Amino acid sequence: MTPPNTGRRSEASRRAVLTAALDLLQEVEYAKISIEGLASRAGVGKQTIYRWWPSKGAVIFDAFLMLSEGAEGGPVQLPDTGDLAADLTEVLRATVTELNEPRYEQPMRALATEIAHDPELAAIYAERLDGPLREAKRQRLRRAQRAGQLAEDLDLDVAVDLIWGPLFQRWLHRSGPLTTEYADRLVATALDGLRPRR
Amino acid sequence: MTPPNTGRRSEASRRAVLTAALDLLQEVEYAKISIEGLASRAGVGKQTIYRWWPSKGAVIFDAFLMLSEGAEGGPVQLPDTGDLAADLTEVLRATVTELNEPRYEQPMRALATEIAHDPELAAIYAERLDGPLREAKRQRLRRAQRAGQLAEDLDLDVAVDLIWGPLFQRWLHRSGPLTTEYADRLVATALDGLRPRR
Repeated sequence: MTPPNTGRRSEASRRAVLTAALDLLQEVEYAKISIEGLASRAGVGKQTIYRWWPSKGAVIFDAFLMLSEGAEGGPVQLPDTGDLAADLTEVLRATVTELNEPRYEQPMRALATEIAHDPELAAIYAERLDGPLREAKRQRLRRAQRAGQLAEDLDLDVAVDLIWGPLFQRWLHRSGPLTTEYADRLVATALDGLRPRR
Repeated sequence: MTPPNTGRRSEASRRAVLTAALDLLQEVEYAKISIEGLASRAGVGKQTIYRWWPSKGAVIFDAFLMLSEGAEGGPVQLPDTGDLAADLTEVLRATVTELNEPRYEQPMRALATEIAHDPELAAIYAERLDGPLREAKRQRLRRAQRAGQLAEDLDLDVAVDLIWGPLFQRWLHRSGPLTTEYADRLVATALDGLRPRR
């Protein structure tokens, strides 16, 4: 067993590194952040970082987890008032607000970048962050499907991608304004489809 | 006027740098590629690179343009056989094939990353690459809309995002297999919507 003092000291160093990562992300271009820079900002040795994290991406991932800790707690669940369109609109509007928040923006961009280039980190992300969230989305859609509100033969994974994929791309590539109005239209268009309904 | 020899020499250096970028992208982790490394691989001085490109991202962008040069030539146009579902399916299947091609993968990931972090490059990308392509997509959808095949009040920008956004996200984050079957389902689900059609 680790003596309590060492444990507390380790935890303090760990949080110092993650806080340093979040601070640096607000100040410096992501590509310019190095393990050296992180260590010096956190006041720990480089070896401390290498002992706990295999890569800069892994630090960013944990920093992001720490940042969103408060928001999570307990299993994720999407609202279910029975009105699917209203529930999805509420969730997407909240996502738009979060994506536009300066505190989240750089950590999320950094994480998106690391995942894009590091298949191992992508797997960890899928398992620990995206997986549970995706399952919550699928569950909400499944309930609507059982209630006859969604097509019987709908592929729920494709459905999740259709609702959240466009938002992610528009945010990442800044291909258009990320507004609540856009969120509303996205939900409505995904539910109704592009073809006319008669 | 630049004497012809200097012009030819410049063009040769320019292509050497872009080719070096594409070669390095196949061999080295993107974050590890530096202007120094590019210069040494291309056999030019660092100053030559700084004279022509403001950043590594700008080199990557031009390298990507060079790579896709053959494929373009002339204004982009989407197929139009009158059968919208078939045409979109064909286009999305071709995109899936391209995204899975090793030669394209690293340059496209590098470009996606740079755009995510560099608003200036994002603007150039939107203007020179994504813009004309988006307009071609909108045009194809507009023709279908005029023919009564798409909802009258459809927002064509949202429609483009719905069809292409999910593919991009799945590719970038490897959140699922990128297959022609997925492309087919995506088109069908976007056209029909998630709600049952009676």
